[in-house]
Amino acid sequence: MTDQTQIVVIGAGFGGFQAAQSLANANARVLLIDRNNYHTFVPLLYQVATAQIEPTQIAFPVRTLLRRGKNLSFLAAEVERVDFQTQQVHTNRAVIQYDYLVMATGSRTQFLGVPGAAEYAFSMRSLAEAVTLRNHILSCFEAAIATSDTQERERLLTFAIVGGGATGVEVAGALVELIQGACRRDYPELGNLRKLRQITLPRVVLLQSSDSLLGDLPPRLGRYTDQCLRRLGVEVQMQTRVEQVTPAGAQLQSGQLLASATVIWTAGLEAAIPEVSTDLAAATKGKLRVRPTLQLVDHANVYAIGDAAYVEHAGKSLTGVAPEALQQGVAVARNLRRQLRGEAPKPFSYFNKGRLAIIGCYAGVGQVVGLPLTGPLPWLMWLAVHLVYLPGFRNRLLVLLTWLQGYVMGDRAVRLILPPHAAQAQPLDLPAPPQISSRR
Amino acid sequence: MTDQTQIVVIGAGFGGFQAAQSLANANARVLLIDRNNYHTFVPLLYQVATAQIEPTQIAFPVRTLLRRGKNLSFLAAEVERVDFQTQQVHTNRAVIQYDYLVMATGSRTQFLGVPGAAEYAFSMRSLAEAVTLRNHILSCFEAAIATSDTQERERLLTFAIVGGGATGVEVAGALVELIQGACRRDYPELGNLRKLRQITLPRVVLLQSSDSLLGDLPPRLGRYTDQCLRRLGVEVQMQTRVEQVTPAGAQLQSGQLLASATVIWTAGLEAAIPEVSTDLAAATKGKLRVRPTLQLVDHANVYAIGDAAYVEHAGKSLTGVAPEALQQGVAVARNLRRQLRGEAPKPFSYFNKGRLAIIGCYAGVGQVVGLPLTGPLPWLMWLAVHLVYLPGFRNRLLVLLTWLQGYVMGDRAVRLILPPHAAQAQPLDLPAPPQISSRR
Repeated sequence: MTDQTQIVVIGAGFGGFQAAQSLANANARVLLIDRNNYHTFVPLLYQVATAQIEPTQIAFPVRTLLRRGKNLSFLAAEVERVDFQTQQVHTNRAVIQYDYLVMATGSRTQFLGVPGAAEYAFSMRSLAEAVTLRNHILSCFEAAIATSDTQERERLLTFAIVGGGATGVEVAGALVELIQGACRRDYPELGNLRKLRQITLPRVVLLQSSDSLLGDLPPRLGRYTDQCLRRLGVEVQMQTRVEQVTPAGAQLQSGQLLASATVIWTAGLEAAIPEVSTDLAAATKGKLRVRPTLQLVDHANVYAIGDAAYVEHAGKSLTGVAPEALQQGVAVARNLRRQLRGEAPKPFSYFNKGRLAIIGCYAGVGQVVGLPLTGPLPWLMWLAVHLVYLPGFRNRLLVLLTWLQGYVMGDRAVRLILPPHAAQAQPLDLPAPPQISSRR
Repeated sequence: MTDQTQIVVIGAGFGGFQAAQSLANANARVLLIDRNNYHTFVPLLYQVATAQIEPTQIAFPVRTLLRRGKNLSFLAAEVERVDFQTQQVHTNRAVIQYDYLVMATGSRTQFLGVPGAAEYAFSMRSLAEAVTLRNHILSCFEAAIATSDTQERERLLTFAIVGGGATGVEVAGALVELIQGACRRDYPELGNLRKLRQITLPRVVLLQSSDSLLGDLPPRLGRYTDQCLRRLGVEVQMQTRVEQVTPAGAQLQSGQLLASATVIWTAGLEAAIPEVSTDLAAATKGKLRVRPTLQLVDHANVYAIGDAAYVEHAGKSLTGVAPEALQQGVAVARNLRRQLRGEAPKPFSYFNKGRLAIIGCYAGVGQVVGLPLTGPLPWLMWLAVHLVYLPGFRNRLLVLLTWLQGYVMGDRAVRLILPPHAAQAQPLDLPAPPQISSRR
């Protein structure tokens, strides 16, 4: 019975979520698995971390997806192991049998072996991490005005960002906006302390290992971004490598210690692949090697997409932005439908609509249909594009309203230190026997 | 120098927040202290717990208040001890000197000595607790469809509410709405299981020790509420006392065990008073005895308001609703201004505009200018009143939009299990020497 065919999609990120959506009402049952019951709109995480928008505004309940097709279902579980021989996905809740598998497991922060980075640096790969960072940044201000130790105050008001890619640039710009907007109004004490010469302005320091920002984009745009950030008051330090991260701050290779209570790590990613029964051919950063059709080189009924897969475009590796994963999600769904009909999958080709990066304070850079753009236009385009791609009409409306308020009033609405009572907050973790997989 | 006079307000709840606001531009420096940097709109906590609105929509950043008067400042700190002899408030961040003190320290859940209640029952006194409960309720559904153990599934889908006051009634109604609306769509599996007779409907059980609901209101309204809840599908059990709460559920005095993974405790409150240097005259539930002017019986320069104070109105104790605390906040500010001018404080008298309680599904009850109301009118009035009193235009707009979507589409938008990464999430805790208090 073909309608017994079971497709399992691991990961509800851009790739997996899109793949499941595109498989709605296909001639197979589709089970989407993710540890969270929501899809996270990662490109806006930095705005959550800088108190610009609310976490829930970029989270989309996965189960809303199920309403689009009777063949779709969802399991909130942690994937522990994939067995290609028995064609089973082992999770903390159940063992799932699959006929076809889509690995859209995404990426995790890569600390490049820098000691202390994993322990003491903040990363922004999940909603929880973004909220944690927001709580921390605002707590630094609260602590800074409550202490009379000048050195400690400087450390609390120094924010170091490691990595000069899009994320690093975005965070730097957003932090400056936060400091010069809301925090200036919220902490008048800091103004008085400045008058008393007991404090300099809060510092935002961007540490970049190479000698240019936004490496993926033409050098001209990197230079513009550099000037723009400096004008905003960001201290950009090129050719600066971080040797170690400690509670005291970032230890630089130059031997200098950058005293900072907040080191934000945006310097690298690697594929997040669950434990598998047989070693898979992998490329750089642990990304899985796939055929042009996105099938694994070793398994024709297993696909890998998004940050989990190594895919080349125009001779270069894809850079790991959302549109790539989305297009791959659609392509995988199309290929699976072909396989269900007994036809051969078709090769994937990426259509690059362009790249945009936002600097903040009404400035952005971008390359659209080969055309390099700088200034307010790419800034506005960035906002528009992200608003359009944000899933859920409700989220779109709320984010738009929040942005309007923020940019019109130069304020931040979500200035909450909301440390959640962790006890009990974990989802219940119940073992369930394998047979539930067959019932699906 | 009179402008050196320092007024300290402990607690940014309804009473304390209002008192600080009403003291804007008074001839004294006013320091508001709270452990959180936001004011929580408690009456809507139950809607956060039932995935109806977002936590941030009922949280208002306290520092926004500072923008209303140059004499206002805020300290995010935990109050550890109050010393009436030295007139100092000891916090985890600093020791604060005061000339006048307002104790608006609010209340905490009172578990009436029921074993296990504090450990295993959920209460809703803070945003964090409400979010924890929301995560738990949604996790119960996720776990219920992942398990094949019928008994366990019943336990996961049985929600027990202890206490038939306004909060208990509101939670019961909101839970039924959640189950019959969003959850029915999100978990089609449950529908199938019902067809297979493997499950009954998810149960909402309201346990009330007395034989009527909403004791503060006329019996007629309690009876209406009872009928209304039963019609909605809530199992109301009168004259039922909980003897013990365990992970298995609620152990009733009748000897029966109500198997439930979710026991929600709304049965009692007691005043939350910090450690003090000298014992204070207290009334029931640890509430402080105050003069008609709201000054402590024992200390003329210390006021107590809200749930921290025992105040009578028309021969009966006030019931602990927001309007009481708000009016007391205004009265305290007025009396402090009088004391600053060397005049005598005036007695406080409460103006009772009425009481409203919402049952859910378009029904409410209320008593306005002595007139008992039931049905959609008090329901609508309840929504309107709470919208008007919700601080912040932005929050008002967002809550209105969310309500519209919820009631028009019978859906819940915030169905997120967002267990936040607790590590690092606590605010930095830095000791600071006393002198900072004098700098304020």
